[in-house]
Amino acid sequence: MLKVIKIGGNILDDEKALAHFLNDFAMLNGPKVLVHGGGKIASEIGLQLGIEPNYVYGRRITDADTLKVVTMVYAGLVNKNIVAKLQSLGCSAIGLTGADVNTIAANMRAVKEIDFGFVGDVIGVNGIFLKQLIDSGIVPVLAPITHDGNGTLLNTNADTIAQEAAKAMAVYGEVALVYGFEKDGVLQNAADDASVIANISVNDFDRLVSDGVISGGMIPKIQNGCDAIRAGVKQVIIGNALQLNNIINGEKGTVIK
Amino acid sequence: MLKVIKIGGNILDDEKALAHFLNDFAMLNGPKVLVHGGGKIASEIGLQLGIEPNYVYGRRITDADTLKVVTMVYAGLVNKNIVAKLQSLGCSAIGLTGADVNTIAANMRAVKEIDFGFVGDVIGVNGIFLKQLIDSGIVPVLAPITHDGNGTLLNTNADTIAQEAAKAMAVYGEVALVYGFEKDGVLQNAADDASVIANISVNDFDRLVSDGVISGGMIPKIQNGCDAIRAGVKQVIIGNALQLNNIINGEKGTVIK
Repeated sequence: MLKVIKIGGNILDDEKALAHFLNDFAMLNGPKVLVHGGGKIASEIGLQLGIEPNYVYGRRITDADTLKVVTMVYAGLVNKNIVAKLQSLGCSAIGLTGADVNTIAANMRAVKEIDFGFVGDVIGVNGIFLKQLIDSGIVPVLAPITHDGNGTLLNTNADTIAQEAAKAMAVYGEVALVYGFEKDGVLQNAADDASVIANISVNDFDRLVSDGVISGGMIPKIQNGCDAIRAGVKQVIIGNALQLNNIINGEKGTVIK
Repeated sequence: MLKVIKIGGNILDDEKALAHFLNDFAMLNGPKVLVHGGGKIASEIGLQLGIEPNYVYGRRITDADTLKVVTMVYAGLVNKNIVAKLQSLGCSAIGLTGADVNTIAANMRAVKEIDFGFVGDVIGVNGIFLKQLIDSGIVPVLAPITHDGNGTLLNTNADTIAQEAAKAMAVYGEVALVYGFEKDGVLQNAADDASVIANISVNDFDRLVSDGVISGGMIPKIQNGCDAIRAGVKQVIIGNALQLNNIINGEKGTVIK
């Protein structure tokens, strides 16, 4: 089963954690895709360049200068260092943005109440190209940068890229979508790291939200997961990125089916 | 005939010139590879980040901080903007560093009189992978960043990358190596832009240098070209990057055979 695995800032910002994860990832058998987010380093480098991060409702606003920074950091520094590390671990990785071979096309988000700037909403994934790479034994490493087809790069949520890539690849066979983060899974009690919900059925999602079992930042992540399942992804796993083997073999983490 | 075309800072630092070149490049028929250098923007961004550029004998010293900057700028900002622009022109481009699918492996340059830092000397090109891409109608866009196979990225001269890529591809068929720069070709008289030498024979190179016909910065470029011809590249063209069609069809520029 193809595994599409997403990691975020908590891993990317911690050199030792990233090395641990990449080692596990490289050893993982079978076809796989890695999707990475950004992390704090983009904000840090932006600040050094005199670009203040601008958030509205917790979402980063991507002005032209910020787009340059995230392109440099996500598609350059972060992506290519991951690729080089994976190569050193015997994993034939290739780093891609959405612009490369039109892997992920997006529309610049329409301005409603907020003008998010150069932010992309995914409209298409070049699954044929990803399949060709994967069938050749190559491991795509996707940076959270897409393009609009008219020459403009766009900053794009990495969770969404992982979800859309998993959905696109589900056409060709079974796909597991894995969200690796800093918690051991979806927690029944946010204050209790041991209260992992082992299984969530797509049909239970609305009830779990209204009962308050799922709350806060977990809601969009699980909503993403449920959407992926409905679109043909076989299973979605949410768990600790530092326990990759355990969450993939079902010993730990939360599985959405 | 496969064309491996290299452009440098004079084009990359000038938005209009780059747009002009990319339009010509996108329209060019037949298989092609683009190799780009860096340009001033890496130094500018480095300075903004408090990293002073350090040159010894005109060669940039790449310390750890500078490596981060060139990785961000060359592999991220410059490479991905070129790819997005080419996509918008109907050219199915893919941006690659040497780390991606081990496209270009290098050794960190040995310390002799100068410690160049994180600078790579090319030791191998993954011609099979480049050929697979090209045969699929994809256009590789190579950034001047390689890797050592042990997880370390390396800053690498773009002229050399173009030369090594052309040599590697010559195994599969005829290759033309094109160095696009700001002059109309190799000039007999550096002060006279019209004094272009139309043809240089590899066998004449030593005599032309000792006679002073070729001098200064032209020597390594033509030496590179002669080495490529001896290694099986069909022809090397040196000319104005803004006259791509004219130099490729032989109306302008200098041809080394």
